[in-house]
Amino acid sequence: MKQKPLILVTNDDGITAPGIRMLVDIMKEIGDVAVVAPDSAQSGMGHAVTINNTLTLEKVSIDPDLANEYACSGTPVDCVKIALSQILDRKPDLCVSGINHGSNSSINVIYSGTMSAALEAGMSGIPAIGFSLLDFSWNADFEQIRPFVKKITDEALKNVIPTDVVLNVNFPKLKTDEIRGIKVCRQAKATWMENFDKRLNPHGKEYYWLKGEFVNQDKGEDTDEWALKNGYVSVVPVHFDLTAHQAIKRINNWDL
Amino acid sequence: MKQKPLILVTNDDGITAPGIRMLVDIMKEIGDVAVVAPDSAQSGMGHAVTINNTLTLEKVSIDPDLANEYACSGTPVDCVKIALSQILDRKPDLCVSGINHGSNSSINVIYSGTMSAALEAGMSGIPAIGFSLLDFSWNADFEQIRPFVKKITDEALKNVIPTDVVLNVNFPKLKTDEIRGIKVCRQAKATWMENFDKRLNPHGKEYYWLKGEFVNQDKGEDTDEWALKNGYVSVVPVHFDLTAHQAIKRINNWDL
Repeated sequence: MKQKPLILVTNDDGITAPGIRMLVDIMKEIGDVAVVAPDSAQSGMGHAVTINNTLTLEKVSIDPDLANEYACSGTPVDCVKIALSQILDRKPDLCVSGINHGSNSSINVIYSGTMSAALEAGMSGIPAIGFSLLDFSWNADFEQIRPFVKKITDEALKNVIPTDVVLNVNFPKLKTDEIRGIKVCRQAKATWMENFDKRLNPHGKEYYWLKGEFVNQDKGEDTDEWALKNGYVSVVPVHFDLTAHQAIKRINNWDL
Repeated sequence: MKQKPLILVTNDDGITAPGIRMLVDIMKEIGDVAVVAPDSAQSGMGHAVTINNTLTLEKVSIDPDLANEYACSGTPVDCVKIALSQILDRKPDLCVSGINHGSNSSINVIYSGTMSAALEAGMSGIPAIGFSLLDFSWNADFEQIRPFVKKITDEALKNVIPTDVVLNVNFPKLKTDEIRGIKVCRQAKATWMENFDKRLNPHGKEYYWLKGEFVNQDKGEDTDEWALKNGYVSVVPVHFDLTAHQAIKRINNWDL
């Protein structure tokens, strides 16, 4: 009998977040699951990695079905690195990250700890998928998207994700039967219009809270933003070669 | 007379690092300089952003020539966001980040706070360049690369960096007259082979230090790694559309 796939599960909301617990639950139907996830919330950590501090790794048993479940003091990227180096005795067949509480569509992919963990796995040659639900709340209803997470994971294992590509999957906040299907998309061109809330602390010193407004400048109907707004699950294949290849020729005309 | 360009300077090694002081010194020859940089070292922070904590901004005067110099408690990306929103009264004509103490070539671009600051500026529509010297030491000899930093910046202002493109510039650790020139390159395909140094603290509890070995798998002579190994300055145009466009068609053949 064929060996079950080994699936590494991580996230950025922390190991106890409902999103990762749902993802573990779905992955147990598909393969052997190992969890290495942050011991606290790590949202917005991007591709941060801990180089000037130490890391700890604590064996936990949140899900008694799992032999390998660890809480790590580091970032999502640290979790993937330490899982591959210290926990798993073979290369996993898949790494899944999430399910994130909140969107990682469009430019959010750059800031996302969820997607950075998936990208880190991809950079190590492991097929990887990041899952996010467009609902920031702790009590988001992940049950609604269960069949789609299962379907995409099954297809990714069956068809093989292209080399050096990682999937960024986002789900609209809808009921299962309201979701119109799955669309493979490009990343919409969008930005955050930054703003800061300036306040005074009790000692009269100024401090700031970052806030911002997401602005989609992209009218394309082939984007993740379009898909999500229109009731579809978006799947964006992303890569980690950041070279703007088409710009090389143009800059070669400069007098450098 | 034409207005001098407004140049925002930031980095990830902290506002007092010799690399940023050299960059400020060079930029003062070119335009009006404002500095907003981290109050402490932020290496390896990637595109991290501070959303679950507050930020402080302190006016400092390390360089008495500058009217706008601020130390920020956040990440390099936070520095750019807060500079644009709270400090500068107009959009800068250029944002430069660095000079980083250490390489940001190849896959390091993903982990780099220096480059994330530059990318953040680019995402806000500001021409941006990240500069890095292949010398991790605090006493790295930045004087050797001064003419090249000046040259690239002048050319970028004159020729205009393509829209949605940011330059990732790395310098070999060589004397000025040993540097063979400047090459426009693609990002080499390379990875970090991860390893961890496992230790015991005085109370017998395990902890880890991340370490790793950089492995360049790319034999191409059009890469940044090749250029740097062969005595050239590397200039890689990078972008923030992570879509693996060529993979969309292939994944559309899956049964989703």
